[in-house]
Amino acid sequence: MKKANKKVNAAIIIIGNEILSGRTQDVNVVSISKWLNELGVKLEEVRVIPDIEDSIVRTINEVRKKFNYVFTTGGIGPTHDDITSKSMAKAFKVSYKYHKQAYEILKKYYKPENFNEGRKKMAMLPEKALLIFNPSSAAPGFILDNVYCLPGVPSILKSMLGGLDDKIIGGKKILSKTINLDTVESEIANSLEKVQNKFKDVEIGSYPFFKQGKIGVSIVIRSIEKNLIYYCFKDIENFLKEKRIKIIKTE
Amino acid sequence: MKKANKKVNAAIIIIGNEILSGRTQDVNVVSISKWLNELGVKLEEVRVIPDIEDSIVRTINEVRKKFNYVFTTGGIGPTHDDITSKSMAKAFKVSYKYHKQAYEILKKYYKPENFNEGRKKMAMLPEKALLIFNPSSAAPGFILDNVYCLPGVPSILKSMLGGLDDKIIGGKKILSKTINLDTVESEIANSLEKVQNKFKDVEIGSYPFFKQGKIGVSIVIRSIEKNLIYYCFKDIENFLKEKRIKIIKTE
Repeated sequence: MKKANKKVNAAIIIIGNEILSGRTQDVNVVSISKWLNELGVKLEEVRVIPDIEDSIVRTINEVRKKFNYVFTTGGIGPTHDDITSKSMAKAFKVSYKYHKQAYEILKKYYKPENFNEGRKKMAMLPEKALLIFNPSSAAPGFILDNVYCLPGVPSILKSMLGGLDDKIIGGKKILSKTINLDTVESEIANSLEKVQNKFKDVEIGSYPFFKQGKIGVSIVIRSIEKNLIYYCFKDIENFLKEKRIKIIKTE
Repeated sequence: MKKANKKVNAAIIIIGNEILSGRTQDVNVVSISKWLNELGVKLEEVRVIPDIEDSIVRTINEVRKKFNYVFTTGGIGPTHDDITSKSMAKAFKVSYKYHKQAYEILKKYYKPENFNEGRKKMAMLPEKALLIFNPSSAAPGFILDNVYCLPGVPSILKSMLGGLDDKIIGGKKILSKTINLDTVESEIANSLEKVQNKFKDVEIGSYPFFKQGKIGVSIVIRSIEKNLIYYCFKDIENFLKEKRIKIIKTE
């Protein structure tokens, strides 16, 4: 796999009224983010927007300039509310028409009597789109420049990510270490801030947890440098010893 | 409860590296969105951004001009990565200092020996912030103009929403009807599009589902007008009868 020498970032645009209305719980951000971590790409923004062409065009054109990679989810199915492909064509100012390769894939997948207008619509793509193959249900996703359009159905989306590994040129893999503590955040806030100020290039997060009636804090250290995580962890371990705060476990 | 005569919309800004890294699954969007539906406020955008002051200030100042209400989640705790209050002060160009009422609430809640620096920090708020009371853990959220800052911990956030009902002036309640069908999307795509074109003010969504090995489609009709939903449903029911497509259930 090719690797970039600089930091590589990404954004996700979730296109879907059903997420905004609270009807559907998004789970695709976690799937894409974890996959990007492995590839050394840092997810830096997510937007959830409605199925409205203007919103989609404006958001895509804003976000694709700011990030190395953009992933959209949703809106590539056969119904009237699936307008991602058409909106992408508009955003990139290219024509929206039958994509020969996509059409052939769908034609082969369905029996002739079942290859209806709705299904044909899924072969309507922006001109020069590169296909993202779909091992689950034939209907392809597609790539235009740095924008990758994926479906909204979580299981199908997941099945398509693996096929993209070779297309993404990531940076160094983002590593993380989690320290679960038997304490509350305010007990460690000052000492943790000092460690963060010492290690500017490490991202230190502090998250209270409530599990099975017990409360605690998870400290998460993230960096592309294994050494930095180690030294940072050692400093945290030292102040925890001083404060007699118990580490429940590290991961 | 007061009601506006016009449509009322909202956005959510999720402030949290832990959501972007894929470590934590957000569930607050669904909670806030469902609560807003009841109040007649339509959620129209969500952004997830990192714990970086510049990003927070820029996003808040952009989004608060575009929407009637903005809700932020996360970043109001005691640790160094909790920078929502400070960033809000910067966005609104007001000072960031001890908020008398918040300080008193926290002082009363903790034993004197436990009211440490970290906990005192949670009383540091933008000047003139109005408090959002927290029945779960004392640390208040706050309001500046049309921006409502809430915590990231889902159970605490939920416990605080009810107390805000009187502060939100919503429009008409958004109603919805769901029709679950024993079919696939492509079978209904054309007919459904015709219904959507006839009822421009109704939002019709189509969502494939996969439950216990069965596949199907949910059609969701949303509007503030009960009558429109009814007529729209009747048209859908008609084409389903013609196509001999079975309604599994309606909700």
